[in-house]
Amino acid sequence: MTPSRPTRILGIDPGSRTTGFGIIDVVGREQIYVVSGCIKTIKNDELAGRIGIIVENISELVATYRPTVAAVERVFVNVNPAATLMLGQARGAAIAALVLRGLPVYEYTALQVKQAVVGQGKAAKEQVQHMVVQMLKLSGTPQADAADGLAIALTHALRNQGLAAKLGSSQVKGGRFQ
Amino acid sequence: MTPSRPTRILGIDPGSRTTGFGIIDVVGREQIYVVSGCIKTIKNDELAGRIGIIVENISELVATYRPTVAAVERVFVNVNPAATLMLGQARGAAIAALVLRGLPVYEYTALQVKQAVVGQGKAAKEQVQHMVVQMLKLSGTPQADAADGLAIALTHALRNQGLAAKLGSSQVKGGRFQ
Repeated sequence: MTPSRPTRILGIDPGSRTTGFGIIDVVGREQIYVVSGCIKTIKNDELAGRIGIIVENISELVATYRPTVAAVERVFVNVNPAATLMLGQARGAAIAALVLRGLPVYEYTALQVKQAVVGQGKAAKEQVQHMVVQMLKLSGTPQADAADGLAIALTHALRNQGLAAKLGSSQVKGGRFQ
Repeated sequence: MTPSRPTRILGIDPGSRTTGFGIIDVVGREQIYVVSGCIKTIKNDELAGRIGIIVENISELVATYRPTVAAVERVFVNVNPAATLMLGQARGAAIAALVLRGLPVYEYTALQVKQAVVGQGKAAKEQVQHMVVQMLKLSGTPQADAADGLAIALTHALRNQGLAAKLGSSQVKGGRFQ
């Protein structure tokens, strides 16, 4: 039997200025760090330019690392309506790039991320970052937005772990990361 | 001298439920109707599904009609923050599709559209639609969102007419629509 391709999750934390991303592989019950970083738009650039930077970089990430699934942080509306609009635009552009590359997209709220990664919804941002470092055995702490991207990817992995185990995650164990 | 390709403008009015579009050609000082319509997302569909419908349809429009430039209505924030976020997402997806197809994107406010098409910023929506029908010599009134798409395309045409004339719009007169 051919071993199935391991699940590779691209987590994205969209922002109007900076979009964080993190990619992890799921091998059995283990999560393995692949890459993480930030996409920064140019301040004062026109909207089309900023959107172009987001879609082109995400498109390139998908082409290079070939994730099998994407998870995006479900944002909440900001007190500032103009900021909410800009955040929506950045988020729409990021999801557009994922959809155009044919990736299934899942959404998780910040509460779901905290519950999955730290175990409780009231965890501080620093606790989430700390757990990301521990779970992925990183030698240093990634930049905040990159850590958020990794935390979203981990959330998808952890929430689907039970299900995957039931469906026979042992198949995945025979994958190329063994 | 080879006649230059006529300017073909794709006007887009993004909305969370319906995205209107209109395409016109500019031949000298004339604007010629090409096509218009609406992209409707499926109510209750998940976000990725709705964004997929927007990007795929706009991408297909650009591939089919090959506009040379795009003009998008600059929206203003809504009183409802959740609606503002959703509108931002739809708008971000639409602009992402245009940018990925390599189109230059211009933005115009509703005020600029009214000033350009009707001649005054306080014009009612119906006056804008009436002028769209007159200017493009349409035999019927297009659907409201499609008319808005055409109005945005006309705005780009009218605002750039003076400039084009100075740069020698007579070249365009020799184009394939003569």
